[in-house]
Amino acid sequence: MADEVILLGYYYSMFDMRVRVALAEKGIDYEYREEDLANKSQILLEMNPIHKKVPVLIHNKKPICESLIIVQYIDQVWKGKSPLLPSDPYQRAQARFWAEFVEKKIYDPGRKIWTTKGDELEKASKEFIESLKLLERELGEEPYFGGEIFGFLDVASITLYSWFYAFETVGKFSIAEHCPKLIEWAKRCMEKESVSKSLADPEKVYDYILALKKKFGFE
Amino acid sequence: MADEVILLGYYYSMFDMRVRVALAEKGIDYEYREEDLANKSQILLEMNPIHKKVPVLIHNKKPICESLIIVQYIDQVWKGKSPLLPSDPYQRAQARFWAEFVEKKIYDPGRKIWTTKGDELEKASKEFIESLKLLERELGEEPYFGGEIFGFLDVASITLYSWFYAFETVGKFSIAEHCPKLIEWAKRCMEKESVSKSLADPEKVYDYILALKKKFGFE
Repeated sequence: MADEVILLGYYYSMFDMRVRVALAEKGIDYEYREEDLANKSQILLEMNPIHKKVPVLIHNKKPICESLIIVQYIDQVWKGKSPLLPSDPYQRAQARFWAEFVEKKIYDPGRKIWTTKGDELEKASKEFIESLKLLERELGEEPYFGGEIFGFLDVASITLYSWFYAFETVGKFSIAEHCPKLIEWAKRCMEKESVSKSLADPEKVYDYILALKKKFGFE
Repeated sequence: MADEVILLGYYYSMFDMRVRVALAEKGIDYEYREEDLANKSQILLEMNPIHKKVPVLIHNKKPICESLIIVQYIDQVWKGKSPLLPSDPYQRAQARFWAEFVEKKIYDPGRKIWTTKGDELEKASKEFIESLKLLERELGEEPYFGGEIFGFLDVASITLYSWFYAFETVGKFSIAEHCPKLIEWAKRCMEKESVSKSLADPEKVYDYILALKKKFGFE
């Protein structure tokens, strides 16, 4: 029996995009169901009753939640093609550490860039850049975080890139100026079809952010 | 060459205790170095420059940070004895999901129980209990979260137990009343020497919390 793979997602979600990239890397066919986050589907509420959030991967009727957990699941189930996690335990732990760093130290201040203004926005922008610099240092001189291959931490981090234009425009800073190598890495990743076809369009993300800022009064 | 294993820890930390339990389960000899969190050691700052937090496992000079990442590392490196993560990808994803749930939905409101008062404390206590009920439901009728064996989610969750007495006394509630099966599970885990010798003494935890409440004015 062929695998039934359904992804409950949201076009603009950096978390959802991770799963799209991982599925594309593995060459897995799946049905994509875009959620309306203002009016969540019954299936989303049933499949992720705890957090009620996208992404949810439904594999042969069973739900897997939380983007990094889903990517690890995909890597274990479809292990033949494009291994994502390093096999070495130490490298594996490092990849997990930095993927969590992206969640805690980049995503959170990134969110504040479009949900605050004035001093708070300035502080968030500074924190965001400082964290990106740390991530860039972790990349070092390698082509990818996975070394010669595009791996787990690349999947976890590259989806930020689709939001860079929005962050830069709202926060009035240039990421390339502070982190030139990170931008080179992102462009290298974008040469992969698994990435370029999975990431949201930066201009659409910017319009989306502007609409949210207006809606919530953060202009 | 024998492995050199050092754990930088803190007696009262639920995160540190997870690593102690995992090392004990695997029967690994290690050197334990208690940190003074008010005056962190140079080695802690060097080994975990990003978060500057315990626990840090230093294995043959290489640092691994973040408790759940460390436990997974230990499980991969010392795979022969007491496997912790399920081998089945779906079960593994579920174990990871609930371990993160403990961090986000139990540890955070738990922290508020001793860092707030009045309405906030009441709200945190309610949230804490509701999350424990969800965790109890996940246990079902099994002896352990790992089914017949004490596994990853057991390691991730059991260290809460050493704080239960403090939470209950400060929050003025009874966990046994709301979650009797979870208490039975905790007692079952405590029969294992790897757990009982690794967890902090509940009365000492309570005294510690009282001292912190006094220090920070949360009385």
